[in-house]
Amino acid sequence: MSTADGSRIVGAIRIVIVGGGRIGQVHARNILMNGAGLRLTAIVEPFPTESLTSLAARADVPVASELGNWLAEADALIIALPTDMHEEVLMAAAAAGVHVLCEKPLAGDLDAARRMIAAAEEAGIVLQVGFNRRFDHNYRALRAAAANGGVGRIETVRVTSRDPGPPGIDYIRQSGGLFMDMTIHDFDMIRFLTGDEVESVFARGACLVDEAIGQAGDIDTALVTVRFKGGAIGVIENSRRASYGYDQRAEIHGSRGAAESRNDTESRVTISDASGVHDEKPLHFFLERYRESFVAEVQSFTAAVRDGSTPEVTGHDGLEAMRIAAACRRSLESGREVALSEIQ
Amino acid sequence: MSTADGSRIVGAIRIVIVGGGRIGQVHARNILMNGAGLRLTAIVEPFPTESLTSLAARADVPVASELGNWLAEADALIIALPTDMHEEVLMAAAAAGVHVLCEKPLAGDLDAARRMIAAAEEAGIVLQVGFNRRFDHNYRALRAAAANGGVGRIETVRVTSRDPGPPGIDYIRQSGGLFMDMTIHDFDMIRFLTGDEVESVFARGACLVDEAIGQAGDIDTALVTVRFKGGAIGVIENSRRASYGYDQRAEIHGSRGAAESRNDTESRVTISDASGVHDEKPLHFFLERYRESFVAEVQSFTAAVRDGSTPEVTGHDGLEAMRIAAACRRSLESGREVALSEIQ
Amino acid sequence: MSTADGSRIVGAIRIVIVGGGRIGQVHARNILMNGAGLRLTAIVEPFPTESLTSLAARADVPVASELGNWLAEADALIIALPTDMHEEVLMAAAAAGVHVLCEKPLAGDLDAARRMIAAAEEAGIVLQVGFNRRFDHNYRALRAAAANGGVGRIETVRVTSRDPGPPGIDYIRQSGGLFMDMTIHDFDMIRFLTGDEVESVFARGACLVDEAIGQAGDIDTALVTVRFKGGAIGVIENSRRASYGYDQRAEIHGSRGAAESRNDTESRVTISDASGVHDEKPLHFFLERYRESFVAEVQSFTAAVRDGSTPEVTGHDGLEAMRIAAACRRSLESGREVALSEIQ
Amino acid sequence: MSTADGSRIVGAIRIVIVGGGRIGQVHARNILMNGAGLRLTAIVEPFPTESLTSLAARADVPVASELGNWLAEADALIIALPTDMHEEVLMAAAAAGVHVLCEKPLAGDLDAARRMIAAAEEAGIVLQVGFNRRFDHNYRALRAAAANGGVGRIETVRVTSRDPGPPGIDYIRQSGGLFMDMTIHDFDMIRFLTGDEVESVFARGACLVDEAIGQAGDIDTALVTVRFKGGAIGVIENSRRASYGYDQRAEIHGSRGAAESRNDTESRVTISDASGVHDEKPLHFFLERYRESFVAEVQSFTAAVRDGSTPEVTGHDGLEAMRIAAACRRSLESGREVALSEIQ
Repeated sequence: MSTADGSRIVGAIRIVIVGGGRIGQVHARNILMNGAGLRLTAIVEPFPTESLTSLAARADVPVASELGNWLAEADALIIALPTDMHEEVLMAAAAAGVHVLCEKPLAGDLDAARRMIAAAEEAGIVLQVGFNRRFDHNYRALRAAAANGGVGRIETVRVTSRDPGPPGIDYIRQSGGLFMDMTIHDFDMIRFLTGDEVESVFARGACLVDEAIGQAGDIDTALVTVRFKGGAIGVIENSRRASYGYDQRAEIHGSRGAAESRNDTESRVTISDASGVHDEKPLHFFLERYRESFVAEVQSFTAAVRDGSTPEVTGHDGLEAMRIAAACRRSLESGREVALSEIQ
Repeated sequence: MSTADGSRIVGAIRIVIVGGGRIGQVHARNILMNGAGLRLTAIVEPFPTESLTSLAARADVPVASELGNWLAEADALIIALPTDMHEEVLMAAAAAGVHVLCEKPLAGDLDAARRMIAAAEEAGIVLQVGFNRRFDHNYRALRAAAANGGVGRIETVRVTSRDPGPPGIDYIRQSGGLFMDMTIHDFDMIRFLTGDEVESVFARGACLVDEAIGQAGDIDTALVTVRFKGGAIGVIENSRRASYGYDQRAEIHGSRGAAESRNDTESRVTISDASGVHDEKPLHFFLERYRESFVAEVQSFTAAVRDGSTPEVTGHDGLEAMRIAAACRRSLESGREVALSEIQ
Repeated sequence: MSTADGSRIVGAIRIVIVGGGRIGQVHARNILMNGAGLRLTAIVEPFPTESLTSLAARADVPVASELGNWLAEADALIIALPTDMHEEVLMAAAAAGVHVLCEKPLAGDLDAARRMIAAAEEAGIVLQVGFNRRFDHNYRALRAAAANGGVGRIETVRVTSRDPGPPGIDYIRQSGGLFMDMTIHDFDMIRFLTGDEVESVFARGACLVDEAIGQAGDIDTALVTVRFKGGAIGVIENSRRASYGYDQRAEIHGSRGAAESRNDTESRVTISDASGVHDEKPLHFFLERYRESFVAEVQSFTAAVRDGSTPEVTGHDGLEAMRIAAACRRSLESGREVALSEIQ
Repeated sequence: MSTADGSRIVGAIRIVIVGGGRIGQVHARNILMNGAGLRLTAIVEPFPTESLTSLAARADVPVASELGNWLAEADALIIALPTDMHEEVLMAAAAAGVHVLCEKPLAGDLDAARRMIAAAEEAGIVLQVGFNRRFDHNYRALRAAAANGGVGRIETVRVTSRDPGPPGIDYIRQSGGLFMDMTIHDFDMIRFLTGDEVESVFARGACLVDEAIGQAGDIDTALVTVRFKGGAIGVIENSRRASYGYDQRAEIHGSRGAAESRNDTESRVTISDASGVHDEKPLHFFLERYRESFVAEVQSFTAAVRDGSTPEVTGHDGLEAMRIAAACRRSLESGREVALSEIQ
């Protein structure tokens, strides 16, 4: 195990989480449950909620109002802040030779993302972007099926991603829009599943779930058609609301077969009665559905930190997903197909 | 039961099938198996295959080389001819007051389709178009789920339609192209499932299955994004080849739920062994998958003939599917979204 | 095609159905729909219901009050009478060299069954017993999986058979008891699926569905454990009522794998909503679930008549199922395991 | 939180694991991963394997060759020893007022089990028996469906339990036989699922998987028919080998519906290709399938320790499962049904 400057890290990897909101707390719990090898040094959060305070107290972890000197106590940071604050913290981490796992989207704009990537490269730190779904058991199995050639040459791919319900309108307003906030996971997913790059997109969106979202200038339903450089085509289906819960599926169709990933459920119990044959709804939302993928994400990140190896999700991956999101936005606004090469 | 001119048909409905190829023979067998109420008077086929000759002999049905006087012996025609011959036969039937079930697509071009519809209306005959999938048990149940409000207001719809393998290149050359030949079923299906009309389409196609199809100027893989007048959006996935067989699925997502129709199989037997848990492939192709829908289609047609009622699939339905196909072709050629209003 | 005495049958096989109740009418319709090759000569029913009269009128088939001279007009009989009338009609048919498809159970007692088998053999007629489930697509696929060695050496087999609801108490009283009336299908099924013979049974029964059934001296719920001569063991689960409908499943477990047959449904549509993910109930009852197996049963029978070959379900099969039913009854009454060799 | 004598436990619950084999190590890892609240004080194992030594070293937990003074350092013991050593350790724990989670089966014979239960009661310690499957997500959901009345009055229950392959013959020889070693989980499960007590059993067994098992005087395949005091009947299917892996299913059928629990898989990915539609095999074996149930089991146990409440699986539950196993053995040997009242 080595630091960015090549010196050895002695003992457990010391992690500081910057941002103590919902995702920050998820990472905190996973590190605490991880047993030996990782140490949660501090959580930086100027406005701690009661749930954060309570978690920190039980685990005997300090909650700091600013990063400050804690950077010197850290081998790695997890950045779980609002997007527009990512760059500043990353720059500080890079300057200190501290590795970073940064939540998605990587940055507020493409230039910032590029500066962050450059800084991380120059500093020799690991920069991993928080596309946790790459670590999900279903998507990993799906990609394995594709990567092992089980489906032959990929021809079409489909990702269905629907939230159980829309977030509050305040969240929508500062979210960067559906594509940058929600679909960005799916943009990364189609790159992950196909191992291919996007050539162009055609995005169609609508406001069908909540009028307030439309009034805020956003959409809540989208269909994105994608053309890949390798010739395949794909589609992403999005909605901010599915009455039956969190719908997270994908399907790859190739020359020799197809592979499909369905929703997880809490149990495999089926009930048959006079009104039909009933299965459970999908797991409620991302905290339940991707519970283990968040654990595996941190394990993968800290393994990269230990080995000094390339992380499974790079800054480049973070940037590419942002470029696709930007292309979709332009497509939606212009009503035409947009080549990714237009987005610089 | 009455004829087009209001006079009573005495006894069984006398049907003449014009065109004795694969589909013509399917209709012939279904009429013969239908028991009382329908009579297969003749099959018109100038170049009968051995299988047609054998079928006709077993059933004691004459095979005629031309329609000619058989029109006078018919209450109804089933037109199972190449598309460019539909108009001529329909016109003769209309002139004779004989009802028509016409295979899809309705006509070789939009003007011909319009002339056929006008002639049928003027003559007061039933004109039903052969979108047999509307009579399929799965799609009927899916539409019922939607129509009964079980899914609430429809927001997105998806139709997946993949053939087990591409037809011969000669067929491709005279097919009218993927959209007019194959996707046309799906264009009708999205109208059927949603009860809504198409506002615009964006079509993306590729030649991924067989280079010869591309050399013939056609595509073999398509993704069509659809915007409906009512605000919903949809996608159609097409391929001329699925290694696992005939893939015929659809999904409707609405404000209160989603309904999904999966593939039929020959049996419901699952085999578990050291290599996994194995289910059967989908039923092989349309003759197997839609076997019962062809039966129900003729029953529905003859019921409309009996009642003098509007058929379940009208000439207008046939025309609309053709217009959507034409819009998709223009979209594919122009690389832009095409409004259906552009197609006159 | 030949008659029992070796002379040729000219033209279609002439069939007389003896018994015009529910099953008799099912056979009648299937023969009428079968097209060429079979002719329904008459239906013998002294007390025709309106539905029988109407069916016969539409098909122009005479309804006779007694078999009488109709036997001379028949190549084959289908016996769809109360069990205790089977022997008399079979004997008449054998004497006239007329082939027989006899509904289950073959006879009212084992001696009668043996006399019927002997008479049929002596007369050289085909005697097929109405275990229609052997012709069901699911059970055929299950047996094929087993017979092809796909599951290796069979170790355990399970048949689940539950009716949607109990028949009227009058039916129960003359039914011969659950084992002889209902489970008899399952006794035949385990012999069919395993290709093995039963060594012994242990039957456990209860009256849990309807007290009146218990008062009539019968049970409505049963678990039968079976030991096969070949070493495998099996279990049959029965109930006269399943709130979710007609439950017809089976599972074979062998040294190399397992094969499982699940319930059929009307469609493959799944609806997801706020209360869960819902599939359809199984097809309602045997008329729906085994619709096609009744068709295939008559086709198999008439093929045996044509070829003079051994039918797919023999009189011996009918007798063996009765012996197993008798053994179960004895086991239930005695509370001990009963060897099939005890039942002579 | 209080000790058995009513005094307060200060800080984390101190646990000593007695027995460092496979199961002992599972518990060790789960306690280490549990975060705050539990402390693994020591593992007692006279013959530590390398995997145990390595685990203990990483976690900085001492491995002791005998319990000795460690008892004084423990609030609770987990007994993961060979069955015939359970009593001695439990007696020591009871004498010291230390709570016990004891692996199944509770004891080597019924008298020992009774002595253990009495000693635990007298000492006022929590005695929980290691029927971990009660904490499995699927069985919990199944029981909830039954307990909530979703299936109405329970009429039949079925538990299918097959191991992926037989253990070594040395294990078989000291296992106490299939019923006491393997089926004992299922005996507990049918009591758990139904909330009912067993009235009598009829057991049928065979040696079909491995002749050596038969030569060792045991069976490897079993069907147990159960009659419950409340009137329901049930069946347990067992095999020491399933080619497709670990088969753990159950089904409850009641007056208002049925509930069925199927196998877990690593992912929900389905692959369709020219040879069929393929799902994954069940999770490999109990360490994978019941991974989370072992975690929940210890949480439940330590919650009972904290609260001084009755554990979710009591010593009585452990005894009852043993009595059913003994009844099955007697049934198998005698070929007759055995009432549980015969087993004292």
